[in-house]
Amino acid sequence: MKKFVNDPKQFVPDMLEGLALANPGTLTYDPASNLIMRVDAPVPGKVSILQGSGSGHEPAHVMAVGPGMLDGACPGDVFAAPPMDYVLAATRRLATEAGLVYIVNNYTGDRMAFEMAQELAEAEGIKVRTVIVDDDVAVDNSTFTVGRRGVAGNFFVIKAMGAAAERGADIDEVVRVGEHVNSVTRSMGMALTSCTPPAKGTPIFELGETEAEMGVGIHGEPGRERVQVRSASEIVDDLLDAIVSDLPFAAGDRVALMVNGLGGTPISELYLLYGLAHKNLVGRGIEIARNYVGEYCTSLDMAGASLTLVRLDEEIDELFGAPAAVPIRVF
Amino acid sequence: MKKFVNDPKQFVPDMLEGLALANPGTLTYDPASNLIMRVDAPVPGKVSILQGSGSGHEPAHVMAVGPGMLDGACPGDVFAAPPMDYVLAATRRLATEAGLVYIVNNYTGDRMAFEMAQELAEAEGIKVRTVIVDDDVAVDNSTFTVGRRGVAGNFFVIKAMGAAAERGADIDEVVRVGEHVNSVTRSMGMALTSCTPPAKGTPIFELGETEAEMGVGIHGEPGRERVQVRSASEIVDDLLDAIVSDLPFAAGDRVALMVNGLGGTPISELYLLYGLAHKNLVGRGIEIARNYVGEYCTSLDMAGASLTLVRLDEEIDELFGAPAAVPIRVF
Repeated sequence: MKKFVNDPKQFVPDMLEGLALANPGTLTYDPASNLIMRVDAPVPGKVSILQGSGSGHEPAHVMAVGPGMLDGACPGDVFAAPPMDYVLAATRRLATEAGLVYIVNNYTGDRMAFEMAQELAEAEGIKVRTVIVDDDVAVDNSTFTVGRRGVAGNFFVIKAMGAAAERGADIDEVVRVGEHVNSVTRSMGMALTSCTPPAKGTPIFELGETEAEMGVGIHGEPGRERVQVRSASEIVDDLLDAIVSDLPFAAGDRVALMVNGLGGTPISELYLLYGLAHKNLVGRGIEIARNYVGEYCTSLDMAGASLTLVRLDEEIDELFGAPAAVPIRVF
Repeated sequence: MKKFVNDPKQFVPDMLEGLALANPGTLTYDPASNLIMRVDAPVPGKVSILQGSGSGHEPAHVMAVGPGMLDGACPGDVFAAPPMDYVLAATRRLATEAGLVYIVNNYTGDRMAFEMAQELAEAEGIKVRTVIVDDDVAVDNSTFTVGRRGVAGNFFVIKAMGAAAERGADIDEVVRVGEHVNSVTRSMGMALTSCTPPAKGTPIFELGETEAEMGVGIHGEPGRERVQVRSASEIVDDLLDAIVSDLPFAAGDRVALMVNGLGGTPISELYLLYGLAHKNLVGRGIEIARNYVGEYCTSLDMAGASLTLVRLDEEIDELFGAPAAVPIRVF
């Protein structure tokens, strides 16, 4: 294994400590529950937003904490749901009188942890709601999921809910915004290589020298099809065929387009993909009003990429443009 | 080879086209000379700043074009200096009556192309100056370099010169600022893996399963030492020993610290490195006043990282904090 790591078991805490040291004025780190939070959270009167999920997907979600985005993120170990007691501790710490909303990507382990924490928190009188993200069109049901998986589209759900909460929306409204964005967001990814969790030390699945996995999950779960490596144009066309036909997106739509790297793919290749996706969508009569090119939701060091489309309406467009301040590019 | 690419010979133009399509309001792309430029360049009365260098180091330098940074970047092919006639064409297009400054990383091929272009441009009456960047402490002289190599510290030279030019500094002052920043900037990197240029299709050098290259160059040039893979702490300590002792940096110094990924290393590992570097420097009595964690100057898909320190004074600190608007994080 070739990674920057000391004790592989301490990979996540060591990474979170580095993140907090790099953002002393804006982020606070509580090692007791793996919690990265806004330094000023909970903000009195504001609905708080908390995201969990496994680690290994950075910048998701610990680097999406800040004004206009998440109030906190409590990740689990690499590719593992956060322990329920971490979620509960984070809930107690972040909840305000306006309440707290969980954003949960649709994986069974994450849902269990957050459902249990919600139940216990509500028994303590804390107002908690949950928004589920399930933007991945690749497969219905999968290794760790009943229903569809939540992947990079999560970023857009955070962005819109964070903006709504920041301007004082109540908990029902914050939940409505999140569910609305999720309902018009579709993603699909593909892997050129596997990835290696630090504590495992070997690749999590096998992919031959000339193979690619179309529709791969962000934990290496199987996708739609194991294919021979093909041209960038063919990859983009295949991904967009699946995404566009799913909602479906149609001529005349205005969209946000994200080209998300999975961790081991350089940004030069992501911009090459952006150009191809841009031309594909313009050819369909779809207008790209906002674009996001970079790493947003990764799978450790996996070489690969995902595309995400969000159908914009006036409300979503305005929320996407609202101010936010986190360690990653949000506009 | 597993990459997102159509025709490998068209990798650079395809990437640049994607970059321009993603930034329609701010960047212009001229395929005739591989030029990415500010949409409003040349800005009348302002000293223009142009960077060349090979491709394969993205976001350097084409994603560092915009207000407060570069006016243009004219990259060559992957790991190849830009052709002299591209540099000359870009010079003619970007120069103002206030002049134009080249920022050139110290590689023999780049220096030749820019020196010839400068000579020809000056013969046409264009005012041109050059700032050489040579921040890499790893080795004196190398495969493609007489003297020290220019690596990720280049970002800081661009940032300061861009800020100075934006506020109306004349050409002598812009050059002085660039040389001043370069003189207090030191970097060193290390590779965990090799990298694969699209047109070559195979790794550019060999690195065994348990080997790492300390002081690697950004084109895979040999560094100081081929070592066995070691802990992240040992790597950080070795890199900082080399960097700190070189200037030297000393207790009481205020610095900017960059943890730069070389392309194939996920940001989780970069933040882990940041935490270790932060504690190392604090232990030496050095204050980290600014930090930059992410990818700034890469080597395609190489797994690895570099550290850069800049000794801040009031002038540099203020220029680093000046506004800038490019597709990457600049604060």
